[in-house]
Amino acid sequence: MANNKKVNSAILIIGNEILSGRTKDTNTSTIALWLNSIGVKVQEVRIVPDVEEKIIEVVNLLRKNNDYVFTTGGIGPTHDDITAQAISKVFDLKYEIHKEAYKILEAYYKPGEFNEGRQKMVWMPQNANLILNPTSGAPGFSVENVFCLPGVPSILKSMLGGLKNKIVGGKPIVSLTISLRTVESEIASSLTEVQNNNKDVEIGSYPFFHAGKLGVSIVIRSEDRTKIDVCNMQILKFVKQKKIEVVNR
Amino acid sequence: MANNKKVNSAILIIGNEILSGRTKDTNTSTIALWLNSIGVKVQEVRIVPDVEEKIIEVVNLLRKNNDYVFTTGGIGPTHDDITAQAISKVFDLKYEIHKEAYKILEAYYKPGEFNEGRQKMVWMPQNANLILNPTSGAPGFSVENVFCLPGVPSILKSMLGGLKNKIVGGKPIVSLTISLRTVESEIASSLTEVQNNNKDVEIGSYPFFHAGKLGVSIVIRSEDRTKIDVCNMQILKFVKQKKIEVVNR
Repeated sequence: MANNKKVNSAILIIGNEILSGRTKDTNTSTIALWLNSIGVKVQEVRIVPDVEEKIIEVVNLLRKNNDYVFTTGGIGPTHDDITAQAISKVFDLKYEIHKEAYKILEAYYKPGEFNEGRQKMVWMPQNANLILNPTSGAPGFSVENVFCLPGVPSILKSMLGGLKNKIVGGKPIVSLTISLRTVESEIASSLTEVQNNNKDVEIGSYPFFHAGKLGVSIVIRSEDRTKIDVCNMQILKFVKQKKIEVVNR
Repeated sequence: MANNKKVNSAILIIGNEILSGRTKDTNTSTIALWLNSIGVKVQEVRIVPDVEEKIIEVVNLLRKNNDYVFTTGGIGPTHDDITAQAISKVFDLKYEIHKEAYKILEAYYKPGEFNEGRQKMVWMPQNANLILNPTSGAPGFSVENVFCLPGVPSILKSMLGGLKNKIVGGKPIVSLTISLRTVESEIASSLTEVQNNNKDVEIGSYPFFHAGKLGVSIVIRSEDRTKIDVCNMQILKFVKQKKIEVVNR
Protein backbone atom coordinates (compact mmCIF):
# COMPACT_ATOMS: atom_id res chain seq x y z
CA MET A 1 0.00 0.00 0.00
CA ALA A 2 1.90 3.04 -1.23
CA ASN A 3 1.14 6.63 -0.41
CA ASN A 4 2.49 10.00 -1.50
CA LYS A 5 4.25 10.98 1.71
CA LYS A 6 8.02 10.96 1.93
CA VAL A 7 9.02 7.88 3.88
CA ASN A 8 12.44 7.91 5.53
CA SER A 9 14.61 5.25 7.05
CA ALA A 10 18.00 4.63 8.63
CA ILE A 11 20.27 1.61 8.56
CA LEU A 12 22.35 0.50 11.55
CA ILE A 13 25.18 -1.90 10.78
CA ILE A 14 26.26 -3.70 13.95
CA GLY A 15 29.64 -5.38 13.88
CA ASN A 16 33.28 -5.06 14.85
CA GLU A 17 34.24 -6.83 11.63
CA ILE A 18 33.10 -3.84 9.56
CA LEU A 19 34.81 -1.26 11.81
CA SER A 20 38.08 -3.21 11.73
CA GLY A 21 38.00 -3.21 7.93
CA ARG A 22 38.09 -7.01 7.80
CA THR A 23 34.71 -7.17 6.08
CA LYS A 24 33.32 -4.73 3.53
CA ASP A 25 29.69 -3.83 4.16
CA THR A 26 27.44 -4.71 1.24
CA ASN A 27 24.18 -4.86 3.21
CA THR A 28 23.67 -1.09 3.04
CA SER A 29 23.53 -1.23 -0.73
CA THR A 30 21.23 -4.28 -0.75
CA ILE A 31 18.77 -2.76 1.70
CA ALA A 32 18.87 0.73 0.16
CA LEU A 33 18.21 -0.48 -3.40
CA TRP A 34 15.29 -2.57 -2.16
CA LEU A 35 13.87 0.27 -0.05
CA ASN A 36 14.12 2.73 -2.95
CA SER A 37 12.11 0.34 -5.10
CA ILE A 38 9.25 0.46 -2.59
CA GLY A 39 9.45 4.23 -2.04
CA VAL A 40 11.53 4.44 1.13
CA LYS A 41 14.58 6.69 1.25
CA VAL A 42 17.64 5.98 3.38
CA GLN A 43 18.58 9.17 5.23
CA GLU A 44 21.59 7.94 7.13
CA VAL A 45 23.66 4.90 7.97
CA ARG A 46 25.56 4.19 11.17
CA ILE A 47 28.13 1.51 11.81
CA VAL A 48 28.70 0.67 15.47
CA PRO A 49 30.66 -2.01 17.36
CA ASP A 50 29.16 -4.97 19.23
CA VAL A 51 28.67 -2.83 22.35
CA GLU A 52 25.28 -2.90 24.01
CA GLU A 53 25.12 0.70 25.28
CA LYS A 54 26.15 2.01 21.87
CA ILE A 55 23.47 -0.04 20.07
CA ILE A 56 20.77 1.09 22.51
CA GLU A 57 21.77 4.75 22.25
CA VAL A 58 21.83 4.79 18.45
CA VAL A 59 18.62 2.76 17.94
CA ASN A 60 16.79 5.13 20.27
CA LEU A 61 17.94 8.13 18.25
CA LEU A 62 17.27 6.60 14.85
CA ARG A 63 13.80 5.22 15.61
CA LYS A 64 12.59 8.65 16.67
CA ASN A 65 13.91 10.41 13.55
CA ASN A 66 12.86 7.86 10.95
CA ASP A 67 9.77 6.00 9.79
CA TYR A 68 11.77 2.76 9.72
CA VAL A 69 15.05 1.52 11.12
CA PHE A 70 16.86 -1.57 9.81
CA THR A 71 19.64 -3.21 11.79
CA THR A 72 21.99 -5.85 10.42
CA GLY A 73 24.16 -8.25 12.37
CA GLY A 74 24.36 -9.61 15.88
CA ILE A 75 21.48 -12.10 15.83
CA GLY A 76 23.45 -15.34 15.60
CA PRO A 77 24.29 -17.87 18.34
CA THR A 78 27.66 -16.59 19.65
CA HIS A 79 28.66 -14.29 22.53
CA ASP A 80 29.17 -11.29 20.22
CA ASP A 81 25.54 -11.51 19.02
CA ILE A 82 23.80 -9.04 21.31
CA THR A 83 21.28 -7.27 19.11
CA ALA A 84 18.13 -9.02 20.44
CA GLN A 85 19.08 -8.27 24.02
CA ALA A 86 19.87 -4.64 23.20
CA ILE A 87 16.56 -4.15 21.37
CA SER A 88 14.69 -5.63 24.36
CA LYS A 89 16.25 -2.91 26.51
CA VAL A 90 15.45 -0.21 23.94
CA PHE A 91 11.75 -1.01 24.22
CA ASP A 92 11.84 -2.06 27.89
CA LEU A 93 10.60 -5.55 26.99
CA LYS A 94 11.46 -8.91 28.51
CA TYR A 95 14.21 -10.82 26.66
CA GLU A 96 12.77 -14.33 26.48
CA ILE A 97 12.21 -17.43 24.38
CA HIS A 98 9.96 -16.65 21.43
CA LYS A 99 7.58 -19.62 21.17
CA GLU A 100 6.92 -19.34 17.44
CA ALA A 101 10.63 -18.98 16.66
CA TYR A 102 11.32 -21.98 18.89
CA LYS A 103 8.84 -24.11 16.94
CA ILE A 104 10.34 -23.00 13.62
CA LEU A 105 13.88 -23.94 14.60
CA GLU A 106 12.81 -27.15 16.33
CA ALA A 107 11.23 -28.24 13.05
CA TYR A 108 14.14 -26.94 10.97
CA TYR A 109 16.87 -28.96 12.68
CA LYS A 110 17.20 -32.73 12.80
CA PRO A 111 16.29 -34.34 16.13
CA GLY A 112 19.05 -33.67 18.67
CA GLU A 113 20.60 -30.84 16.62
CA PHE A 114 18.63 -28.01 18.21
CA ASN A 115 21.32 -27.51 20.84
CA GLU A 116 21.95 -24.78 23.43
CA GLY A 117 23.89 -22.57 20.96
CA ARG A 118 21.09 -22.66 18.43
CA GLN A 119 18.46 -22.07 21.11
CA LYS A 120 20.06 -18.68 21.81
CA MET A 121 18.67 -17.56 18.45
CA VAL A 122 15.06 -17.83 19.66
CA TRP A 123 15.64 -15.42 22.55
CA MET A 124 14.01 -12.17 21.50
CA PRO A 125 12.14 -9.15 22.83
CA GLN A 126 8.74 -10.26 24.19
CA ASN A 127 6.08 -10.55 21.45
CA ALA A 128 8.49 -9.50 18.69
CA ASN A 129 7.17 -9.97 15.16
CA LEU A 130 9.16 -12.57 13.27
CA ILE A 131 10.86 -11.99 9.92
CA LEU A 132 11.05 -15.38 8.27
CA ASN A 133 14.35 -16.76 7.01
CA PRO A 134 14.03 -19.04 3.97
CA THR A 135 17.79 -19.69 3.86
CA SER A 136 18.92 -20.87 7.26
CA GLY A 137 15.87 -21.05 9.48
CA ALA A 138 16.67 -18.59 12.26
CA PRO A 139 14.21 -15.70 11.93
CA GLY A 140 14.87 -11.99 12.30
CA PHE A 141 12.35 -9.89 14.18
CA SER A 142 10.81 -6.46 14.45
CA VAL A 143 9.53 -4.33 17.31
CA GLU A 144 7.49 -1.26 16.35
CA ASN A 145 9.47 0.42 13.54
CA VAL A 146 12.77 -1.37 14.16
CA PHE A 147 13.55 -4.37 11.93
CA CYS A 148 16.45 -6.64 12.87
CA LEU A 149 18.15 -8.62 10.13
CA PRO A 150 21.21 -10.89 10.09
CA GLY A 151 24.66 -9.78 8.95
CA VAL A 152 25.36 -12.54 6.43
CA PRO A 153 24.59 -10.85 3.07
CA SER A 154 23.04 -13.83 1.27
CA ILE A 155 20.71 -14.62 4.18
CA LEU A 156 19.74 -10.97 4.61
CA LYS A 157 18.91 -10.72 0.91
CA SER A 158 16.62 -13.73 1.07
CA MET A 159 14.65 -12.20 3.96
CA LEU A 160 13.76 -8.85 2.37
CA GLY A 161 10.86 -10.28 0.39
CA GLY A 162 9.16 -11.30 3.63
CA LEU A 163 9.30 -7.69 4.82
CA LYS A 164 7.36 -6.23 1.94
CA ASN A 165 3.93 -6.27 3.55
CA LYS A 166 5.27 -4.73 6.75
CA ILE A 167 6.71 -1.60 5.18
CA VAL A 168 4.48 1.14 3.78
CA GLY A 169 6.49 3.16 1.30
CA GLY A 170 5.79 6.35 -0.60
CA LYS A 171 6.21 6.82 -4.32
CA PRO A 172 9.12 4.70 -5.54
CA ILE A 173 12.28 6.72 -6.05
CA VAL A 174 13.29 6.57 -9.70
CA SER A 175 16.78 7.21 -10.97
CA LEU A 176 18.23 7.82 -14.40
CA THR A 177 21.93 7.57 -15.21
CA ILE A 178 23.57 9.40 -18.11
CA SER A 179 27.16 8.35 -18.73
CA LEU A 180 29.41 10.72 -20.64
CA ARG A 181 32.89 10.51 -22.16
CA THR A 182 34.16 13.62 -20.39
CA VAL A 183 35.64 14.78 -17.10
CA GLU A 184 33.70 16.47 -14.30
CA SER A 185 35.39 19.85 -14.66
CA GLU A 186 34.13 20.15 -18.28
CA ILE A 187 30.49 19.93 -17.26
CA ALA A 188 30.56 21.29 -13.71
CA SER A 189 29.15 24.76 -14.37
CA SER A 190 26.43 23.57 -16.82
CA LEU A 191 25.41 20.86 -14.38
CA THR A 192 25.22 23.38 -11.53
CA GLU A 193 22.82 25.41 -13.68
CA VAL A 194 20.58 22.37 -14.24
CA GLN A 195 20.60 21.62 -10.51
CA ASN A 196 19.70 25.25 -9.71
CA ASN A 197 16.80 25.09 -12.17
CA ASN A 198 15.54 21.84 -10.61
CA LYS A 199 16.10 22.21 -6.91
CA ASP A 200 13.87 19.35 -5.77
CA VAL A 201 15.63 16.76 -7.93
CA GLU A 202 18.81 15.08 -6.69
CA ILE A 203 21.58 15.30 -9.27
CA GLY A 204 24.87 13.53 -8.58
CA SER A 205 28.05 13.42 -10.63
CA TYR A 206 30.41 10.42 -10.37
CA PRO A 207 33.68 10.00 -12.26
CA PHE A 208 34.39 6.49 -13.52
CA PHE A 209 37.28 4.66 -15.11
CA HIS A 210 36.15 1.78 -17.26
CA ALA A 211 37.94 -0.26 -19.93
CA GLY A 212 40.87 2.14 -19.83
CA LYS A 213 38.79 5.26 -20.38
CA LEU A 214 37.63 8.06 -18.10
CA GLY A 215 34.02 9.16 -17.94
CA VAL A 216 31.38 10.73 -15.74
CA SER A 217 28.02 9.27 -14.74
CA ILE A 218 25.32 11.77 -13.95
CA VAL A 219 22.59 10.31 -11.76
CA ILE A 220 19.19 12.01 -11.52
CA ARG A 221 16.90 10.89 -8.68
CA SER A 222 13.33 11.85 -7.81
CA GLU A 223 9.94 10.39 -6.96
CA ASP A 224 8.61 12.21 -10.03
CA ARG A 225 9.44 10.78 -13.45
CA THR A 226 8.43 13.99 -15.22
CA LYS A 227 10.98 15.99 -13.25
CA ILE A 228 13.66 13.48 -14.18
CA ASP A 229 12.72 13.83 -17.85
CA VAL A 230 12.99 17.62 -17.64
CA CYS A 231 16.49 17.38 -16.13
CA ASN A 232 17.49 14.77 -18.66
CA MET A 233 16.54 17.09 -21.54
CA GLN A 234 18.41 20.01 -20.04
CA ILE A 235 21.51 17.88 -19.54
CA LEU A 236 21.39 16.39 -23.04
CA LYS A 237 21.11 19.93 -24.40
CA PHE A 238 24.43 21.09 -22.97
CA VAL A 239 26.00 17.71 -23.76
CA LYS A 240 25.12 18.22 -27.43
CA GLN A 241 26.36 21.83 -27.41
CA LYS A 242 29.68 20.74 -25.91
CA LYS A 243 29.90 17.81 -28.38
CA ILE A 244 30.36 15.31 -25.56
CA GLU A 245 29.82 11.63 -26.38
CA VAL A 246 27.08 9.77 -24.49
CA VAL A 247 28.19 6.24 -23.61
CA ASN A 248 26.33 3.17 -22.46
CA ARG A 249 27.55 1.60 -19.26
CA MET B 1 55.84 8.22 16.66
CA ALA B 2 53.68 5.67 18.42
CA ASN B 3 52.58 5.77 22.02
CA ASN B 4 50.71 3.45 24.34
CA LYS B 5 47.47 5.40 24.62
CA LYS B 6 44.32 4.17 22.92
CA VAL B 7 43.80 6.31 19.85
CA ASN B 8 40.28 6.49 18.45
CA SER B 9 38.83 7.72 15.20
CA ALA B 10 35.61 8.01 13.24
CA ILE B 11 34.94 7.86 9.52
CA LEU B 12 32.34 10.02 7.80
CA ILE B 13 31.28 8.87 4.34
CA ILE B 14 29.67 11.76 2.46
CA GLY B 15 27.59 10.86 -0.57
CA ASN B 16 24.09 10.29 -1.86
CA GLU B 17 25.41 7.48 -4.08
CA ILE B 18 26.15 5.33 -1.04
CA LEU B 19 22.78 6.02 0.64
CA SER B 20 20.90 5.22 -2.58
CA GLY B 21 22.67 1.88 -2.81
CA ARG B 22 24.08 2.69 -6.23
CA THR B 23 27.66 2.47 -4.97
CA LYS B 24 29.01 0.10 -2.32
CA ASP B 25 31.33 1.78 0.15
CA THR B 26 34.81 0.27 0.17
CA ASN B 27 36.62 3.28 1.64
CA THR B 28 35.67 2.36 5.22
CA SER B 29 37.54 -0.91 4.91
CA THR B 30 40.56 0.71 3.21
CA ILE B 31 40.89 3.43 5.85
CA ALA B 32 40.18 1.12 8.81
CA LEU B 33 42.78 -1.48 7.80
CA TRP B 34 45.36 1.25 7.33
CA LEU B 35 44.50 2.93 10.63
CA ASN B 36 44.68 -0.37 12.53
CA SER B 37 48.18 -0.91 11.16
CA ILE B 38 49.33 2.37 12.72
CA GLY B 39 47.50 1.82 16.02
CA VAL B 40 44.31 3.80 15.49
CA LYS B 41 40.92 2.19 16.13
CA VAL B 42 37.75 3.12 14.25
CA GLN B 43 34.96 3.61 16.80
CA GLU B 44 32.12 4.48 14.49
CA VAL B 45 31.21 5.23 10.88
CA ARG B 46 28.51 7.54 9.63
CA ILE B 47 27.15 7.83 6.10
CA VAL B 48 25.35 11.09 5.34
CA PRO B 49 23.92 12.73 2.21
CA ASP B 50 25.42 15.71 0.35
CA VAL B 51 23.60 18.11 2.69
CA GLU B 52 25.63 20.89 4.26
CA GLU B 53 23.84 21.17 7.62
CA LYS B 54 24.06 17.41 8.10
CA ILE B 55 27.79 17.33 7.36
CA ILE B 56 28.46 20.24 9.74
CA GLU B 57 26.39 18.69 12.54
CA VAL B 58 28.04 15.27 12.30
CA VAL B 59 31.63 16.55 11.89
CA ASN B 60 31.17 18.70 14.98
CA LEU B 61 30.02 15.71 16.99
CA LEU B 62 32.68 13.32 15.72
CA ARG B 63 35.65 15.66 16.10
CA LYS B 64 34.88 16.18 19.77
CA ASN B 65 34.53 12.47 20.54
CA ASN B 66 37.52 11.18 18.58
CA ASP B 67 41.24 11.78 18.24
CA TYR B 68 40.88 11.79 14.46
CA VAL B 69 38.05 12.12 11.95
CA PHE B 70 38.34 11.06 8.31
CA THR B 71 35.82 12.21 5.72
CA THR B 72 35.52 10.77 2.22
CA GLY B 73 33.78 12.31 -0.77
CA GLY B 74 32.56 15.71 -1.85
CA ILE B 75 35.86 17.39 -2.76
CA GLY B 76 35.55 17.27 -6.55
CA PRO B 77 34.60 20.04 -9.00
CA THR B 78 30.82 19.62 -9.28
CA HIS B 79 27.84 21.22 -7.51
CA ASP B 80 27.36 18.21 -5.22
CA ASP B 81 30.90 18.54 -3.86
CA ILE B 82 30.36 20.60 -0.73
CA THR B 83 32.73 19.13 1.84
CA ALA B 84 35.34 21.96 1.78
CA GLN B 85 32.67 24.60 2.26
CA ALA B 86 31.03 22.64 5.09
CA ILE B 87 34.37 22.13 6.90
CA SER B 88 35.08 25.88 6.61
CA LYS B 89 31.83 26.50 8.46
CA VAL B 90 32.61 23.83 11.07
CA PHE B 91 35.79 25.70 12.05
CA ASP B 92 34.47 29.18 11.29
CA LEU B 93 37.19 29.75 8.70
CA LYS B 94 37.07 31.63 5.39
CA TYR B 95 36.39 29.43 2.34
CA GLU B 96 38.98 30.70 -0.13
CA ILE B 97 41.53 29.85 -2.80
CA HIS B 98 44.40 27.86 -1.27
CA LYS B 99 47.55 29.28 -2.88
CA GLU B 100 49.68 26.14 -2.58
CA ALA B 101 46.89 23.95 -3.97
CA TYR B 102 46.44 26.45 -6.81
CA LYS B 103 50.14 26.17 -7.72
CA ILE B 104 49.99 22.38 -7.62
CA LEU B 105 47.03 22.14 -10.00
CA GLU B 106 48.32 24.92 -12.25
CA ALA B 107 51.50 22.88 -12.73
CA TYR B 108 49.57 19.58 -13.01
CA TYR B 109 47.36 20.59 -15.95
CA LYS B 110 48.45 21.54 -19.45
CA PRO B 111 48.29 25.27 -20.24
CA GLY B 112 44.67 26.33 -20.73
CA GLU B 113 43.27 23.21 -19.04
CA PHE B 114 43.08 24.63 -15.52
CA ASN B 115 39.54 25.85 -16.11
CA GLU B 116 36.85 27.21 -13.80
CA GLY B 117 35.54 23.75 -12.88
CA ARG B 118 38.98 22.55 -11.85
CA GLN B 119 39.69 25.77 -9.97
CA LYS B 120 36.80 24.92 -7.62
CA MET B 121 39.01 22.15 -6.22
CA VAL B 122 41.49 24.66 -4.74
CA TRP B 123 38.83 26.40 -2.66
CA MET B 124 39.38 25.25 0.90
CA PRO B 125 39.16 26.37 4.52
CA GLN B 126 41.75 29.13 5.15
CA ASN B 127 45.24 27.77 5.90
CA ALA B 128 44.11 24.15 5.58
CA ASN B 129 46.95 21.61 5.52
CA LEU B 130 47.16 19.84 2.18
CA ILE B 131 47.07 16.08 1.72
CA LEU B 132 48.94 15.39 -1.50
CA ASN B 133 47.35 13.38 -4.29
CA PRO B 134 49.83 11.37 -6.37
CA THR B 135 47.08 10.02 -8.66
CA SER B 136 45.09 12.94 -10.01
CA GLY B 137 46.64 16.13 -8.65
CA ALA B 138 43.80 17.65 -6.62
CA PRO B 139 44.84 17.55 -2.96
CA GLY B 140 42.75 16.70 0.06
CA PHE B 141 43.15 18.77 3.19
CA SER B 142 42.99 18.72 6.96
CA VAL B 143 41.95 21.21 9.62
CA GLU B 144 42.88 20.34 13.21
CA ASN B 145 41.91 16.66 13.65
CA VAL B 146 39.61 16.42 10.59
CA PHE B 147 41.12 14.89 7.44
CA CYS B 148 39.20 15.24 4.15
CA LEU B 149 39.81 12.66 1.46
CA PRO B 150 38.20 12.05 -1.94
CA GLY B 151 35.49 9.46 -2.59
CA VAL B 152 37.10 7.65 -5.53
CA PRO B 153 38.59 4.53 -3.89
CA SER B 154 41.79 4.25 -5.97
CA ILE B 155 42.64 7.92 -5.43
CA LEU B 156 41.88 7.76 -1.72
CA LYS B 157 44.11 4.70 -1.37
CA SER B 158 47.04 6.47 -3.02
CA MET B 159 46.75 9.39 -0.57
CA LEU B 160 46.93 7.46 2.71
CA GLY B 161 50.74 7.14 2.60
CA GLY B 162 51.02 10.93 2.67
CA LEU B 163 49.02 11.03 5.91
CA LYS B 164 51.34 8.81 7.90
CA ASN B 165 53.41 11.56 9.52
CA LYS B 166 50.31 13.50 10.49
CA ILE B 167 48.67 10.76 12.54
CA VAL B 168 50.06 9.66 15.88
CA GLY B 169 48.79 6.17 16.61
CA GLY B 170 49.02 3.93 19.65
CA LYS B 171 50.17 0.35 19.63
CA PRO B 172 49.15 -1.28 16.34
CA ILE B 173 46.06 -3.46 16.69
CA VAL B 174 46.93 -7.04 15.86
CA SER B 175 44.44 -9.65 14.77
CA LEU B 176 44.57 -13.39 14.44
CA THR B 177 42.03 -15.44 12.50
CA ILE B 178 41.31 -19.11 13.19
CA SER B 179 39.06 -20.73 10.59
CA LEU B 180 37.21 -23.88 11.56
CA ARG B 181 35.16 -26.48 9.73
CA THR B 182 32.16 -26.17 12.03
CA VAL B 183 29.04 -24.08 12.62
CA GLU B 184 28.72 -21.31 15.20
CA SER B 185 26.26 -23.14 17.43
CA GLU B 186 28.79 -25.98 18.02
CA ILE B 187 31.36 -23.64 19.51
CA ALA B 188 29.20 -20.86 20.95
CA SER B 189 29.35 -21.81 24.62
CA SER B 190 33.09 -22.67 24.61
CA LEU B 191 33.85 -19.42 22.83
CA THR B 192 31.78 -17.46 25.35
CA GLU B 193 33.93 -18.98 28.08
CA VAL B 194 37.15 -17.89 26.36
CA GLN B 195 35.74 -14.37 25.94
CA ASN B 196 34.75 -14.25 29.62
CA ASN B 197 38.27 -15.33 30.63
CA ASN B 198 39.80 -12.64 28.40
CA LYS B 199 37.54 -9.63 28.73
CA ASP B 200 39.91 -7.03 27.26
CA VAL B 201 40.42 -8.96 24.02
CA GLU B 202 37.93 -8.61 21.16
CA ILE B 203 36.75 -12.02 19.93
CA GLY B 204 34.44 -12.17 16.92
CA SER B 205 32.81 -15.15 15.27
CA TYR B 206 31.91 -15.04 11.57
CA PRO B 207 30.27 -17.83 9.59
CA PHE B 208 31.55 -18.29 6.05
CA PHE B 209 30.59 -20.32 3.01
CA HIS B 210 33.56 -21.07 0.80
CA ALA B 211 34.08 -23.58 -2.00
CA GLY B 212 30.78 -25.22 -1.18
CA LYS B 213 31.54 -25.74 2.50
CA LEU B 214 30.39 -24.00 5.67
CA GLY B 215 32.83 -22.79 8.29
CA VAL B 216 33.40 -20.25 11.02
CA SER B 217 36.23 -17.74 11.30
CA ILE B 218 37.12 -16.65 14.81
CA VAL B 219 38.91 -13.32 14.88
CA ILE B 220 40.92 -12.27 17.95
CA ARG B 221 41.95 -8.59 18.15
CA SER B 222 44.08 -6.73 20.67
CA GLU B 223 47.03 -4.33 20.94
CA ASP B 224 48.78 -7.04 22.96
CA ARG B 225 50.18 -10.05 21.08
CA THR B 226 50.58 -12.05 24.29
CA LYS B 227 46.89 -11.76 25.06
CA ILE B 228 46.08 -12.94 21.55
CA ASP B 229 48.35 -15.97 22.02
CA VAL B 230 46.60 -16.84 25.28
CA CYS B 231 43.17 -16.75 23.62
CA ASN B 232 44.48 -18.71 20.67
CA MET B 233 45.66 -21.51 22.96
CA GLN B 234 42.37 -21.62 24.84
CA ILE B 235 40.44 -21.79 21.57
CA LEU B 236 42.66 -24.48 20.06
CA LYS B 237 42.18 -26.50 23.24
CA PHE B 238 38.41 -26.77 22.88
CA VAL B 239 38.75 -27.19 19.12
CA LYS B 240 40.91 -30.26 19.72
CA GLN B 241 38.54 -31.64 22.37
CA LYS B 242 35.60 -31.27 20.01
CA LYS B 243 37.61 -32.78 17.13
CA ILE B 244 36.92 -29.81 14.87
CA GLU B 245 39.09 -29.39 11.79
CA VAL B 246 41.16 -26.18 11.50
CA VAL B 247 41.20 -24.92 7.91
CA ASN B 248 43.34 -22.40 6.10
CA ARG B 249 41.50 -19.60 4.38
